[in-house]
Amino acid sequence: MTSTAGPRFVPTKDQRAVLDEAVAALASRVYYSRYPDSPSPRTYGADAAAAGQERFEALLGSDFPGLDGQPSDGALVGAERSPFGPELRIHYPHLDVDAALSAARAAMPVWRDAGPVARAAVCVQIIDAIHARVFQMAHAVMHTTGQPFVMAFQAGGPHAQDRALEAVAAALAEQERVPTTAVWEKPSGRGEPVRMRKDYRLVPRGVALVIGCNTFPTWNAYPGLFASLATGNPVVVKPHPRAVLPLALTVACAREVLERTGFDPALVQLAAEADGEGLARTLAERPEVAIIDYTGGPGFGAWLERTAAATGTLVYTEKSGVNTVVVDSTDDLAGMLRNLAFSFALYSGQMCTAPQNVYVPREGIASDQGRLSFADLGTRLAAAVSALTADDATAVEVLGATVNDEVRARAASLAELAAGAGGSLLLDSRRVRHPAYPDAVVRTPGLVTVDVASPVSERECFGPVAFLIATDSTEASLQQMRETGRRHGAMTASVYSTDEATLQAARDAAADAGVALSENLTRGVYVNQTAAFSDYHGTGANPAANASYVDAAFVAGRFRVVTSRRHV
Amino acid sequence: MTSTAGPRFVPTKDQRAVLDEAVAALASRVYYSRYPDSPSPRTYGADAAAAGQERFEALLGSDFPGLDGQPSDGALVGAERSPFGPELRIHYPHLDVDAALSAARAAMPVWRDAGPVARAAVCVQIIDAIHARVFQMAHAVMHTTGQPFVMAFQAGGPHAQDRALEAVAAALAEQERVPTTAVWEKPSGRGEPVRMRKDYRLVPRGVALVIGCNTFPTWNAYPGLFASLATGNPVVVKPHPRAVLPLALTVACAREVLERTGFDPALVQLAAEADGEGLARTLAERPEVAIIDYTGGPGFGAWLERTAAATGTLVYTEKSGVNTVVVDSTDDLAGMLRNLAFSFALYSGQMCTAPQNVYVPREGIASDQGRLSFADLGTRLAAAVSALTADDATAVEVLGATVNDEVRARAASLAELAAGAGGSLLLDSRRVRHPAYPDAVVRTPGLVTVDVASPVSERECFGPVAFLIATDSTEASLQQMRETGRRHGAMTASVYSTDEATLQAARDAAADAGVALSENLTRGVYVNQTAAFSDYHGTGANPAANASYVDAAFVAGRFRVVTSRRHV
Repeated sequence: MTSTAGPRFVPTKDQRAVLDEAVAALASRVYYSRYPDSPSPRTYGADAAAAGQERFEALLGSDFPGLDGQPSDGALVGAERSPFGPELRIHYPHLDVDAALSAARAAMPVWRDAGPVARAAVCVQIIDAIHARVFQMAHAVMHTTGQPFVMAFQAGGPHAQDRALEAVAAALAEQERVPTTAVWEKPSGRGEPVRMRKDYRLVPRGVALVIGCNTFPTWNAYPGLFASLATGNPVVVKPHPRAVLPLALTVACAREVLERTGFDPALVQLAAEADGEGLARTLAERPEVAIIDYTGGPGFGAWLERTAAATGTLVYTEKSGVNTVVVDSTDDLAGMLRNLAFSFALYSGQMCTAPQNVYVPREGIASDQGRLSFADLGTRLAAAVSALTADDATAVEVLGATVNDEVRARAASLAELAAGAGGSLLLDSRRVRHPAYPDAVVRTPGLVTVDVASPVSERECFGPVAFLIATDSTEASLQQMRETGRRHGAMTASVYSTDEATLQAARDAAADAGVALSENLTRGVYVNQTAAFSDYHGTGANPAANASYVDAAFVAGRFRVVTSRRHV
Repeated sequence: MTSTAGPRFVPTKDQRAVLDEAVAALASRVYYSRYPDSPSPRTYGADAAAAGQERFEALLGSDFPGLDGQPSDGALVGAERSPFGPELRIHYPHLDVDAALSAARAAMPVWRDAGPVARAAVCVQIIDAIHARVFQMAHAVMHTTGQPFVMAFQAGGPHAQDRALEAVAAALAEQERVPTTAVWEKPSGRGEPVRMRKDYRLVPRGVALVIGCNTFPTWNAYPGLFASLATGNPVVVKPHPRAVLPLALTVACAREVLERTGFDPALVQLAAEADGEGLARTLAERPEVAIIDYTGGPGFGAWLERTAAATGTLVYTEKSGVNTVVVDSTDDLAGMLRNLAFSFALYSGQMCTAPQNVYVPREGIASDQGRLSFADLGTRLAAAVSALTADDATAVEVLGATVNDEVRARAASLAELAAGAGGSLLLDSRRVRHPAYPDAVVRTPGLVTVDVASPVSERECFGPVAFLIATDSTEASLQQMRETGRRHGAMTASVYSTDEATLQAARDAAADAGVALSENLTRGVYVNQTAAFSDYHGTGANPAANASYVDAAFVAGRFRVVTSRRHV
C-alpha cells in the first residue's frame, strides 16, 4: 500500500442526515426503517412490481451482466434451480482468485483514507441502489430460497436493506468514537508540561470474506458485508451455489456505485462457484483474508473458527440451534395458537429463528378458555396449523417451497421420526399443491409429541416440524430452555404465561441460556422475526452464533487504530 | 444460575463522578491520571516509602495472607527469587480448580445483576485499594521482575492502575451504550401501530482467565482483569510462577473490597502454581473459561488462540514483536541519541515496546551537527549508551536486573551473535555491579551492526541488544518497518526525520504495518512508554498482539445482550 491522494468523495448534507438518523435510532433501539416493507403499488407505484418481474425474467438463461470488470479465469458457473421448479440457467463469471485478491488489496488504501463518513455515505448509496431493484430482488430471492413472494420481498429486500444500514450505522458510530487527534499535556512538577500531539488513524484489517447461505442470501450476508466495507475492508462475497443471483445483483449494485463515486469496484467482488467446488474453503485459507462472516451448517462453521483462529482471522458465524417455546398459561388462547401456528408455518420452518421444541406441563395449562390438558393443547395447536394451511392457494403464500432434499425427506417421514424418537405423530406434514408451480414441494408443518428425555429434541430439525414435549412443570420447562440453549445453542426462545413470577423466571432462564426471549406473542409479531435497529439477531452467548446483528462487538474489531505522536 | 435479589451496592455521587471523568477522558484521549506517578514524599507523605518497604519485607518468608477464603487443595506453592538476588520464600495456597471454578460461576448472577455502574464503582474501589499499597507493590514488582525501583513503582503501580481504570471506563462506556429498555412502535398502514416493549439485559460470558507475565505482572494483567470483571465475569488470575507476589497482592485487595461491598470474593481468585505445573493450560481447557487474556511467548500464545477458538473462548494475546526505528535526519542529534540510548537501556530492553532494529541509510544522515556517516552515527549512539550507563550506581536505576537466563546468556555473548549474523559488534553489553545487590546480573545494552539481509533482525531478541542496520535509503528503511511489522509483528515504531514528506511516508508505513508510530522523540517521552487513556498499547493489526489496550473491541465482546420483548 502506498499513500493516497486523500478523500475523493464528500457526502452531501442529506447523506449525512440519513447517517445521523440511523446512528441515533440504533443508539436508542426504537423503531427505524429506511426501506418500506409493503410491496404495495401505493408505496412503490403501479408499475414497479411488473417491471421488477420483467427485469428478473430477463436474467433467466443469460450470462449475468454487471460483473464484467471482475478478474475472471474465463469459466462460467451457475446451476441454480428454483425451489418452485424452474432452472434459472444464469451463468456467472468465475473469479480468478489470485487476481481478485490482489485487486481487493490494491483498492484498500484509497478506501481507507476516504474515512468513515465517506465510506458510510457510499454504503448508503449502494443500499439505495439495491433497493431501487427491490422487485427484481424479491423474485431473485423467491426463486433461489423457496420463500413465498411477500416474504422474499420483505426479508430479502427492505428488511435485509435495513439490516445493512444498521451495520453501516454501527460501523460509523464505532469509528467516530475514536478522535482524529488529541493534544496530550502531562503536568510536570516544575516547569513546562510535557505536550504531545497524537493522531489516530483508522485502518482496515484486510480482505473480508462473506459466505452466504441458501435460505437468506441477502438478509444474512448484508450485516457482515456492510460492516466490513464501512470499516474500510474490501469484500469478497461467496454466495451459496443455489442462491447466487440475489448476491450477484447486490455485488453488481455495489460495483456500479463504487465506480460512480470514484472508488475501485474491486472493493466488492462476487466469488460464484460451481456446486461442490469448495471455494469457501480455498478463500478462507488465503492469507489476504482477515475477516470471515459465515451463515450455514455447524460443521463448516466450526472448521472456519478453528482454521481462521490459527492465522488471526476474525470469524463471525451463525450456525444452528434449537429454539424453544415454554407454554405455562395464557389469557389469549386463540391468539397464542394462531401465533404459534404461523411461526411453524412461515417458510415451512426453514428459518434459524423458527420455534422447534414446545415445552408444556404434563398436567396441562390454564387459559382464558379454561384448563387444557396436554393432549387438548396438542389437538388445538394441530387444529390451528391445519386451519392456517387448509387452503392450498393461500397456504403457499405462507409456506413457500422446501429448499432442499434433506428438508423434503424429513417432512415426508415424520411418522418414522416420531416412532424412532419414541413419540407419536400429532399432525403429519401435508404436501400442498402450488397452483402456479406444480413441481414445487410445498409442505405444511407437522407436529410430533415426544418425551422430554428424547434426544430428537436436542438437535436442530430444520424445516416443517415442531415437537410438543411434556414436562413435569413449568419450572422443568424453563430448565429445558436454559439447558437446551446452553448446550445446543438457540437463536430464539418464547414463553407464554399470565404469571409475572414465571415471566421473570423465563427472563432469567433466557439470560442464562444467552437467548433472546419473546413473551406472550399473540398478535402480528412472530418469534422468528427480528427488526433491524431494535432487536439483536443472535446474542453470541450460546453455541448457535458467536456474533450478534448488530452490536458493537460485531463492528469494533473490523478496524484497528494506528497512532502517530510527536512533541508539540 | 438463579434469579438474584438485585443490586446490593449503590455507588456514591463521588464514585460516579470519577467514572464520568474517566469515561470522558477516554473518549477524548487527552491526558488523564488518577494515580500520581512520582514516588516523592511530597505526594505520598514522608512515611509512605518506608512503611511500604516494611510491609513488603514482612511478607518475605511468609505464607501469603489474604487468600484464605479461596478453595485450596492444601498445597502451598511459590519459589520466587528476586532478579536482584534474594529468594522471596513466600508460599501461596494452591487452588482447588474444580471448587474455584464452581465458586466463580456461583458468584456470577449477583454480580451480573448488580449492573455496569455498580460493578465499575466496585472496580474503582479495588484499584484504589491496590493504590493504597503502592510502595509495597513497588517492591513486589521490583523483586519479581528486576525492574529498577522507580520504574517498578511507576509501571507496576500508578501506570498499571491507570490502565486498570481505563479498562473499567471503557467497559462502562460500552455497556452504557446499550439502552436498558425501548418501546418499539411500527406504524401500520391502517389502524393502531404495532407496539413492543424491549428490555435489554447485559450478561457476562463466563469465567475469565488472566495469564500474567514475568516482566510486567500488574501492567499487562490489569486491562484484561478489570475489563472482564467490570463486564460481569469472574476472574481467575494465573500469575507467572516467578512473578506471583504483585498479583497475589492485587487479588487480595480485590477480594477484600468485594467482600466489604457485599459481593462474593470468588469473583477474583489467584491460581498460583508450582514452576512447570502447566496450570495455564489446564485452566484454558476448562469449559467454564470463556475469556482468556494472555501476555507471554508466541508459542503458548498461538496454542491458546488455536485451542480456545475451537470452544468459542475469546482470547486476547500479546506475544512478541520486532520494534523498528527509522533514522532519516534530525535537527536535534543530541536529543535523539539521548532518547534512543535511554530507550535501549530502560530495564535493559526487557520490554515488549523496546526498540530493536534501527534502520539507517548506508550513506548516512543529515543533522544539526552536520552530516554523519553510518559509522559516525553508530559511534555516537554507542557513546550515548556508554555515557548513560557509565556510572554503575546510577546505571542500575535505569537498567534494573536481567530477568532470566536466556536474556543473560544472550547479553553475555553478543560477539558470537554478531559473528553468527554476519555483522559486527559496535558496543558490547557490560555487566554492571549493583552496589546493593552484588548477585544481580545487571547488563547495559549492546549494539550490533548487521546487514539488512541478516535474518537475526527478523526475530525478537528480548533484552539488552539493538541492531544498527544499513539500508540503501530511507525509503528502503521504511519498507523494512512496513514488512517487519507485517511479518513478525511490532508493538512500537519510531522515526527521526526533519522532512515532512518522509514523516508522512513513515505514517503510511506504520499504518500498513499496523503499528503505532513515535516521531522525533528527543525529550522526556520514550517510544517504549504509552500513557493510559491516550496511547493505545498494541494495535491488534499485526502478529505482535491481537488486541489493544484499551479500545472498544477489547471490551465489547466480554459481555452479551439478551433481549426480552412483549406487546404493550
